[in-house]
Amino acid sequence: MTADAVGFPAADLTQNAFLGGRITLSQPRRGYRAGIDPVLLAASVPARAGDHVLDLGCGAGTALYCLAARVPGLDLTGVERQAAYADLARRNAAAAGLDARIVTGDVAALPAEIRARRFDHVLSNPPYFEAAGRSPAADPGREAGLSEETPLATWVDAAARRTTPGGTVTFIHRAERLPELLEAFAARLGSLELKPLLPRDGRPARLILLRGRKGGRTPFVLHPPLVLHAGEAHVHDGDDYNPAVAAILRDGKPFKFSA
Amino acid sequence: MTADAVGFPAADLTQNAFLGGRITLSQPRRGYRAGIDPVLLAASVPARAGDHVLDLGCGAGTALYCLAARVPGLDLTGVERQAAYADLARRNAAAAGLDARIVTGDVAALPAEIRARRFDHVLSNPPYFEAAGRSPAADPGREAGLSEETPLATWVDAAARRTTPGGTVTFIHRAERLPELLEAFAARLGSLELKPLLPRDGRPARLILLRGRKGGRTPFVLHPPLVLHAGEAHVHDGDDYNPAVAAILRDGKPFKFSA
Repeated sequence: MTADAVGFPAADLTQNAFLGGRITLSQPRRGYRAGIDPVLLAASVPARAGDHVLDLGCGAGTALYCLAARVPGLDLTGVERQAAYADLARRNAAAAGLDARIVTGDVAALPAEIRARRFDHVLSNPPYFEAAGRSPAADPGREAGLSEETPLATWVDAAARRTTPGGTVTFIHRAERLPELLEAFAARLGSLELKPLLPRDGRPARLILLRGRKGGRTPFVLHPPLVLHAGEAHVHDGDDYNPAVAAILRDGKPFKFSA
Repeated sequence: MTADAVGFPAADLTQNAFLGGRITLSQPRRGYRAGIDPVLLAASVPARAGDHVLDLGCGAGTALYCLAARVPGLDLTGVERQAAYADLARRNAAAAGLDARIVTGDVAALPAEIRARRFDHVLSNPPYFEAAGRSPAADPGREAGLSEETPLATWVDAAARRTTPGGTVTFIHRAERLPELLEAFAARLGSLELKPLLPRDGRPARLILLRGRKGGRTPFVLHPPLVLHAGEAHVHDGDDYNPAVAAILRDGKPFKFSA
């Protein structure tokens, strides 16, 4: 069973707890499923009660609702191209008692109601894989969530345009895309801050968090990395997150780049 | 006393040992003096005996001769705009028993004899400070060594053009210049690798080493940082380099990004 405009049948969904059970979200059993990436992204957004927040490519809403679970009183908006995921994001908001405006639309051509607005914080976890040079995923929803029909610079441009002066744009992406992502950020935003996420101590970064501020003028900062897992290697399937990471993922603590 | 075309009088020079005394270089008492940056840069260049190496903006030759002290049998070339520093680099080579071709010239308009050649490895430690927004150094040699009349992209362009296919370009620079440096590298080189240098654990990077390969096609790698100093804070003026750093600075060990 795959995603379509009608939405996912309940039998094709799983219920998954995030932030130590503070919030439970439905995800398709097959298709795009959230890992820790949107949770870390949400934890890093410096939003405060009353702020207007936009998630570009919100999927089922994991990042947006994890942020809402940590910071009450936000005005929540998400844009998602795949209608079935947008529908799921709406259902997830309702189930969690959250008021969120989820708009079905393409980042490369944002709907007028989004283009008419500005946001204090824009966040995004864009598709990770370039379409060229890999085999498509068997599931079309997973394929669309992973493939990259829209250039990364288009995502950053859309985010920057929708951000209020002084507001922030935060992306999480694969570390190997840093050159392209940093160039796009530098062209449109200031006060850039990069946080590498290492799977383990001494390993290359697997993920990066990059933040910019609209109109920001402070110099670029390359923060010390966050090391996700303890120990030298993955020895068992149990949990080996470092305490600082566990505090973010389970206790809903904010993720500060400078910590 | 300052640098001029005639060169530094001996009384204005100091003798400084590098790599635990493997090599001794004269530096102006005032003016631009090498810190650990060119030593780390030299240690990171993957040169092997017989390779042709070019240092753009070689100053008194610290990086070039530290590299030569570690890897015998290199063909050494340096370009330096300030005649007095180029002269000092020639004297330093002679004193160290090294055969190096030091050419007085500007990176933005390389002399024909440099433009006629290609090198297996190009390295550079460009001036660190933008001329805008800071007070000029009182010493003109120090000012020229610190100020930035030539855009960073011009340095990278010159380096990439002088590199043989498959050869490497390695720069060390202040971390806050990463966006500009990475964009310049990405436009001209491939297989980029970034190594952050943190002053201490948990602090933002102060310096970065960036390497690219001419015609390289492997994905960008963000390596785990090298932490220069041990402990939480600088408690005394003595030596608190981490062992891996001390091995590079004193024992002349190579500096591998992946270690």
